[in-house]
Amino acid sequence: MDYEHMPPRELRNLIREEKITKHTSGMCAGYAQANLAVLPAEYAYDFLLFAQRNPKSCPVLEVSDRGSRFLKTIAPGADIARDIPRYRIYRDGTLDGEYTDVSAFWRDDFVSFLIGCSFSFEAELLAAGIPVRHIEEDKNVPMYVTGIDCESAGIFRGKMVVSMRPVPPEFVVRAVQVTASMPRVHGAPVHIGDPERIGIKDIARPDFGDSVTIRAGEIPVFWACGVTPQSVIMSARPSIAITHAPGHMLVTDVRNDLLKY
Amino acid sequence: MDYEHMPPRELRNLIREEKITKHTSGMCAGYAQANLAVLPAEYAYDFLLFAQRNPKSCPVLEVSDRGSRFLKTIAPGADIARDIPRYRIYRDGTLDGEYTDVSAFWRDDFVSFLIGCSFSFEAELLAAGIPVRHIEEDKNVPMYVTGIDCESAGIFRGKMVVSMRPVPPEFVVRAVQVTASMPRVHGAPVHIGDPERIGIKDIARPDFGDSVTIRAGEIPVFWACGVTPQSVIMSARPSIAITHAPGHMLVTDVRNDLLKY
Repeated sequence: MDYEHMPPRELRNLIREEKITKHTSGMCAGYAQANLAVLPAEYAYDFLLFAQRNPKSCPVLEVSDRGSRFLKTIAPGADIARDIPRYRIYRDGTLDGEYTDVSAFWRDDFVSFLIGCSFSFEAELLAAGIPVRHIEEDKNVPMYVTGIDCESAGIFRGKMVVSMRPVPPEFVVRAVQVTASMPRVHGAPVHIGDPERIGIKDIARPDFGDSVTIRAGEIPVFWACGVTPQSVIMSARPSIAITHAPGHMLVTDVRNDLLKY
Repeated sequence: MDYEHMPPRELRNLIREEKITKHTSGMCAGYAQANLAVLPAEYAYDFLLFAQRNPKSCPVLEVSDRGSRFLKTIAPGADIARDIPRYRIYRDGTLDGEYTDVSAFWRDDFVSFLIGCSFSFEAELLAAGIPVRHIEEDKNVPMYVTGIDCESAGIFRGKMVVSMRPVPPEFVVRAVQVTASMPRVHGAPVHIGDPERIGIKDIARPDFGDSVTIRAGEIPVFWACGVTPQSVIMSARPSIAITHAPGHMLVTDVRNDLLKY
């Protein structure tokens, strides 16, 4: 099957039928993919406020109505509880299990947050002729916990997690321009250059993901990362939270182009 | 006193001392001014969700902590209950009174929403050489209730209110570019041209503000307006809501330039 050129609705149907259970990287090229965080309503205000205060780490694409498994804007017709290939359920901040369908766990006080994902801006970086090292090396992007405090909101607080892409000096300006134009998928970098300035001790040892080659003269460029809200949710230890499994995203009907200003 | 070139903090101190009680138009040139909406916490989630779903009408610059009269980001040191020249209190959706100080009414369940204001992008339009008719004619901007439904959120629902500025044809593209670069103060227009397409029957009779001259060949350009959230709050009839009085804004420490992407 040609997942790369499949319309998102068709792909989501295959996922719903559990004919696809693997990660969604490269699927439905040109369409935005989204991170999922599902929380009971009692936590929803604090989390939405956290997102408002930390838009680079937590750019919200859509919030479901309370109890609803459906989305109106980014993926009409999608079933939040079935159209992601793999989910994780956390209880009191601890991973409790992985599932390909979470409809059996759904509650009428659940609120779903769909959050922008850097897959969208990586496609634009590549289109602009900017190399993306972890894609070249077929690895996961390297991610680091920084010393930068997020703005806290109620029970949600913590350090910003960033992703890093080494950029040849002649492409750094363009990389800022391309990503700055996409604030709903993390936007402009938060830092360019010296990792220590943002509290990263060893660039060769990421906290999440894989280490990638940094060639002589290349500049490490750091973007706010969608792992930040996940990490902040885990630390807050809500009674239950459902997320996508890493790399297993919701494929939306929104073209990356429409995420640009 | 030269209010136009005064630092915001100094101006806010004069307002707090009630030495300034008039509208803030033209004060602290270059700094963003903000709309205020204060609601009891029970309404805060629905309102924040309304803002998330309607970012052009309701671009949130900052949300206070519950009960707090202070802001951390856009105006550190400001007192929300005293640093705006004139407030309005609404009870059950009906205007109950105007005050220069609302500290006596403050409750520990109040949440304050500071919302971006088109004053910021008008300064940028003028700087780009684009005429702004209602400023030329020393009037209030004309505003219209459209047929465009806002995305509802809980108790908050209603039609989008837009402001209109007639733009000479040679400036229309630039007017889009200038305002599109400022999404936190309403951003790009929602419509260009034929008023009927968005449900406006008579361009000469605005629902709020003043009618302005549209010269031969000029194109009416429509932007989402901060009156939308006010109108939506009034329709929802919360037990109490506090807003700024029209034109009497919070002058922030944020330079308009920093609201650009």
